[in-house]
Amino acid sequence: MSASTIPYKIYLEESEMPKYWYNVRADMKTKPAPLLNPGTHRPMTAAELDCVFCEELVKQELDNDTREYPIPEEILSFYRMYRPSPLVRAYCLEEKLKTPAKIYYKFEGNNTSGSHKLNSAVAQAYYAKRQGLKGVTTETGAGQWGTALSMACSYFGLDCKVYMVKVSYEQKPFRREVMKVYGASVTPSPSDTTAVGRKILAEHPGTTGSLGCAISEAVETAVSNPGYRYVLGSVLNQVLLHQSVIGVETKIAMDKYGIQPDIIIGCAGGGSNLGGLIAPFMGEKLRGEKDYRFIAVEPASCPSLTRGVYAYDFADTGMVCPLAKMYTLGSDFIPAPNHAGGLRYHGMSPVLSELYHQGMLEAISVPQTAVFEAAEAFARVEGILPAPESSHAIKAAMDEAIRCRETGEAKTILFGLTGTGYFDLVAYEKFHNGQMDDYVPTDEELAKYAAKLPKV
Amino acid sequence: MSASTIPYKIYLEESEMPKYWYNVRADMKTKPAPLLNPGTHRPMTAAELDCVFCEELVKQELDNDTREYPIPEEILSFYRMYRPSPLVRAYCLEEKLKTPAKIYYKFEGNNTSGSHKLNSAVAQAYYAKRQGLKGVTTETGAGQWGTALSMACSYFGLDCKVYMVKVSYEQKPFRREVMKVYGASVTPSPSDTTAVGRKILAEHPGTTGSLGCAISEAVETAVSNPGYRYVLGSVLNQVLLHQSVIGVETKIAMDKYGIQPDIIIGCAGGGSNLGGLIAPFMGEKLRGEKDYRFIAVEPASCPSLTRGVYAYDFADTGMVCPLAKMYTLGSDFIPAPNHAGGLRYHGMSPVLSELYHQGMLEAISVPQTAVFEAAEAFARVEGILPAPESSHAIKAAMDEAIRCRETGEAKTILFGLTGTGYFDLVAYEKFHNGQMDDYVPTDEELAKYAAKLPKV
Repeated sequence: MSASTIPYKIYLEESEMPKYWYNVRADMKTKPAPLLNPGTHRPMTAAELDCVFCEELVKQELDNDTREYPIPEEILSFYRMYRPSPLVRAYCLEEKLKTPAKIYYKFEGNNTSGSHKLNSAVAQAYYAKRQGLKGVTTETGAGQWGTALSMACSYFGLDCKVYMVKVSYEQKPFRREVMKVYGASVTPSPSDTTAVGRKILAEHPGTTGSLGCAISEAVETAVSNPGYRYVLGSVLNQVLLHQSVIGVETKIAMDKYGIQPDIIIGCAGGGSNLGGLIAPFMGEKLRGEKDYRFIAVEPASCPSLTRGVYAYDFADTGMVCPLAKMYTLGSDFIPAPNHAGGLRYHGMSPVLSELYHQGMLEAISVPQTAVFEAAEAFARVEGILPAPESSHAIKAAMDEAIRCRETGEAKTILFGLTGTGYFDLVAYEKFHNGQMDDYVPTDEELAKYAAKLPKV
Repeated sequence: MSASTIPYKIYLEESEMPKYWYNVRADMKTKPAPLLNPGTHRPMTAAELDCVFCEELVKQELDNDTREYPIPEEILSFYRMYRPSPLVRAYCLEEKLKTPAKIYYKFEGNNTSGSHKLNSAVAQAYYAKRQGLKGVTTETGAGQWGTALSMACSYFGLDCKVYMVKVSYEQKPFRREVMKVYGASVTPSPSDTTAVGRKILAEHPGTTGSLGCAISEAVETAVSNPGYRYVLGSVLNQVLLHQSVIGVETKIAMDKYGIQPDIIIGCAGGGSNLGGLIAPFMGEKLRGEKDYRFIAVEPASCPSLTRGVYAYDFADTGMVCPLAKMYTLGSDFIPAPNHAGGLRYHGMSPVLSELYHQGMLEAISVPQTAVFEAAEAFARVEGILPAPESSHAIKAAMDEAIRCRETGEAKTILFGLTGTGYFDLVAYEKFHNGQMDDYVPTDEELAKYAAKLPKV
C-alpha cells in the first residue's frame, strides 16, 4: 500500500484484530530466571502458586515454551469494547520538531481505566471467573490498575476487593469513586481487615501506608478467603503475555501499511506496557529475522534498569511474595516523590530484565521536569493530555526525533502512549507552579539498598 | 452489507469522513426567529454582530439557506486527530435489559476535552485565526467548553482568555489546570480585569460568580481589546452547524451498514449536541423523505422545552447579549443544584426551539437520581464512565429499550453519548452517598420567572 493511503490514525478492522497473545519467552534462548520460594530458595511450583493465583494464570506464568496463546472469545468480546487502539502518526509533533523522522504512537488511553492496564485486568478476571472463583483481591497505588480491575470484574460479575494505599485513598478520591462506580470495594491500607494491617497499624499509628503494605493485605485476604485469588497488574510473566496484544496489534497495523519502525520506545515501571509493546518485534530480533532498537525509559528518581543490580529480590516491600531475578534497587527502596506512580516500582519484569541483561534492549532515565515539558509540548500539538508515565516515552521519542533533525536521518520512531493524565492534574499544577522535584538518588544511597538484597 | 459484518464499533475510514457541515435551517419551511438587538428589538445585522463575533461565523449565524458548508481543510486535519468518533452497538446493555431493541450510541468523549464541544471550538478558533485575530474570549462553568477552546487555540496559535465561574475555578482545579496545559489564561469570575467584574465585586463582595457574569466579562474583554472576539459553545446557529459533523458522520456510518434508526435521543442543555446529532436525519424528515422520532432529554430541574415558554429572551443572565426566540425559563432562572453543568442553561437553541414548536421533536425531562442510576448501570456493562449530561440520554434510551421488551418490538435506538465523567466524580460520590438532590421547580416558581421575560 502506498504511503499516501496511510491514514492519520490506523484502526484495524475487527476482523484484523489479534486472536492470540505472543509469549516472547518462547523465543528467548536463555529464559528469564524462575521465581523462587522465599523460604526454601527453590523454584516455585505450580502447586505453591495455585494458592495465590488462578490455575490458568499459574500455567501462563510458568510456561516458557508456548509461543502463541489463543485469546478466549469472552476476552476478545471485551477487547472489542475498547480495542483496537489507534496507531497514530504524530504529524503535528513532527512539524513542531522540524524533524525528518516519522513518529508513530500506539495510544492505549481511550478507555475509562485510562491506560493499557485493562488488557491484563480482563484476562485475569476472566480466568478467575472460569475457575468458579467468587472474587479477586489486589492493591493499587495511584489507582489505574484498581480501576481497570474493577471494570473487568464488573463485566464478569466477580467481586473485587481493592486495597488502596491510604495516602492515595485520601488524596485521590476520584479514582476511588470510579472504582465504586464499577462495584469494587475499596479499603484504605493499612486497615484493620487483615492481620498484617492490624500489626502495621499497631506499630505505626497514623501511617499513610505503602504499596508493599497494600500488597501484603491483598495477598492475605486472597489466601484467607475461600474462592478468592490475588491478582497483580505488572511485573509478572503472565501480565506481559496479556499486554502483548498491544504489540501484536501494532505490528499487524504496521505490516498492513508497510511501515517499518527503526526505534521502539516505551516507559518502564514494572514493564507491563514496554514488554507488551515490543514483544512481537523482539521476537523477530531474537529469531534473527529483523533488527530494531528498543529503548526503555525510566524516571531518574527510580532507575532500576540503568542503575540497579541484576539479582534475586522480593517482588514486594512486605517480602511475602516469591523472589524474582530482576534489575532491582532493593525491595525497600522508596523513590523520591515523583508523579509517575506507575513507574515507582523498585524492580523490573524478569523478562525485560533478562533481555536487558542480554543486550537486546537499551535503557535510559529522564528527570521529571523535562518529562512534563515534553508532555505539555505534546498535548499542545497532538491534543491528548498524556499521563506522566507515558510522557517518559514522549520525552525519549522527541529526543530521538531531534537527533534525526541534526543528522538528517528519516528514521521511523514508534512509542507507546500508555494512558491519559486526567487524574494527574495535581502533578501538572506543581509543574506549572515550578514545584517539581528532580531528585536523583546518589550512588551511596543505592549501594545501601543493594547491600540489603537477599542472599540467594 | 449483511448484519453479520457490522462491527461492534463502527469507525469510518478517513476517506469516508464528512467533508461538509449540514445546515438544517435550509430545510426548515419556517425558519428560526432572528436574533434581536436588545435595545431596538430589530433583527441584529451582520455589522452589529461583527463587533462581537468573527465575520465568517456571523455569516454562518445568519445564513438560513445554504444547505451544506464545506469544512475547511485545516479543520478537517484537526478533526482527524480525534475523529471519526465510534458508533457503538451496545450489545452488553441490550443483554442486560433483555430487550429486543438494537441500541447504538455515537461516542464523542474520546478526546482530551472529554466531549463533543471540540467540534465547534476548532471551527471557531480557525475562523478567528483566518481573520487575523490575536485571540478569543469565552466563559466556562464546569470547564468542558473552556478546555475544548483551549485545545483548539493552542493548535492554531491563538490567545485564549477564559473567564471561569469563581466557584468552579476553586472547586474544579483540575479543569483549570488542563486549560493551562493548553496555554489558556484562566481568570476566576467576577474579576477586577473588567468594568462589569469590578462593579459586581463592589456590589457583592465575596460572590462566587455566575455564568451570566462570566459571559459579561468575556464579552467586555472581547469588544474592548483590539484583535479579540467572543466565542460561545452552544445555543447559537453556528454551533449547531459545526456540531452537525456528529450527525453526518453517524448517518454515513449507518447508511454504510444499512442501519435505520427508529428513535434518536440526545440530552439537551443549550442544544449543541442534540442539534448536531439529529441534523441530517431531521433534514430527511423535513423534506418528507423519511420519518424518525427525535427525543430531547432535559433535567427535571431545568426543563426549558418541557415546561418553558416559547418567547424572546436574553441569551445570558447579564442581559448584554441579543434576544433570541426560544423555549426559556427566563434568563435569571437558576436551577436547583444538579451535576449536569452542561444542561443548566435557562433556554434552548432557537433552531431546536422552532423544530419543537413545529412538533418535529419530542421532549422529556428526567430526575437526577434516576440519571445516575442509568449512568452506573451503563458503565458497568459498556465500560465507559459517562458524563452526567450524556447520562440523561442513556436514561431515556434505556427506558425506550425496556418499553420494547414489554411490547416485543425490535426498534433501533440511537443516542448521543456526548462525553466522559472523569471530572464529575464529586457528583458520583454524592450519588453513592445518597446525597443527590431531585428538586423540581414548582409551577409557581416557573410562572414568576416567566412573568419577567422581556416584552417584545
